[in-house]
Amino acid sequence: MTTVTNGVNVQALLDAREVLKNAPEAAQFTWRASSKWQHGVHSTATIQNFFGLGGEQSHKTEAVFDADHPEIFAAEDNGITPIEFLLVGLASCLTAGVAAVAQNRGIQLRSVESTVEGNHDIRGMLGVDSDVRKGFNDIKVTFTIDADASKQDIEALVAQSQKRSAVFDALTNPTDVTVEVA
Amino acid sequence: MTTVTNGVNVQALLDAREVLKNAPEAAQFTWRASSKWQHGVHSTATIQNFFGLGGEQSHKTEAVFDADHPEIFAAEDNGITPIEFLLVGLASCLTAGVAAVAQNRGIQLRSVESTVEGNHDIRGMLGVDSDVRKGFNDIKVTFTIDADASKQDIEALVAQSQKRSAVFDALTNPTDVTVEVA
Repeated sequence: MTTVTNGVNVQALLDAREVLKNAPEAAQFTWRASSKWQHGVHSTATIQNFFGLGGEQSHKTEAVFDADHPEIFAAEDNGITPIEFLLVGLASCLTAGVAAVAQNRGIQLRSVESTVEGNHDIRGMLGVDSDVRKGFNDIKVTFTIDADASKQDIEALVAQSQKRSAVFDALTNPTDVTVEVA
Repeated sequence: MTTVTNGVNVQALLDAREVLKNAPEAAQFTWRASSKWQHGVHSTATIQNFFGLGGEQSHKTEAVFDADHPEIFAAEDNGITPIEFLLVGLASCLTAGVAAVAQNRGIQLRSVESTVEGNHDIRGMLGVDSDVRKGFNDIKVTFTIDADASKQDIEALVAQSQKRSAVFDALTNPTDVTVEVA
């Protein structure tokens, strides 16, 4: 097998898999975000700390995100719309998976690009029609991949990434979400 | 009713609701993201254009987001983890809803803060145990709200925001997601 350089440390991931087989408690992560209302429908969310491998962990830097609504919703467009963040998460999760699986299969990637489209009937959210769901109707992801592999191998790569993707699972299957006032 | 100044143009939203009652085709939106693999599990996603109200629309500026994995996953931590973007979307969607519903109900907000915690057993994603789901086990959102309203009215505010939230729906109910290679 040729040595490929996609930049994913697959050995570390395979080692982690072995370790976690016998230490399920270390695999329990809690990801966190803090959000603060600014004005109108504009808010900022901050991400830095999380829990995992049995202890508190931290990203190298704090990340801050602005969310708002577009001007056509009579808002100020100080950031992307909340639902668009789901598309960012989905694209980046599937892309990370493609890189990791390619590395594991000895496939050299040259470029991986994708477009994500989420169809959304906003009548649900606005309360125009209670039969219309509030979220996306459906989402389509289209990958364009240049790699040292056949079309068939590239399709298998994407399929395996989808199968393991945390965000793909979170969007295609229900999650229990509790919302409380402190 | 007192005049409250949360900064949400509720009249525009109520007008939009009336218009869309008779023009369901204008309510069909498509939100889009483009993603580009950088190196390892690091990718960048770009958001600017979307479709809605019968035509192409655009955010005022292009937004670019880095996604990566933390160093404890043997990655470079050039951005937040893909699944964390879902928490940003959830917090900001519920917060926007709180502001809009408060405005509609004549409740003056002083501050709205929230924390979101997503519990995640990473054994699913890593392929350690196929019985473990890949996404979140569950998510908890906790709001701290200072407003000219009783605890009961604040709880009702948050409940109404949750009911109408596009991202809450997207996470708690399944969405059809298609992944293709061009």
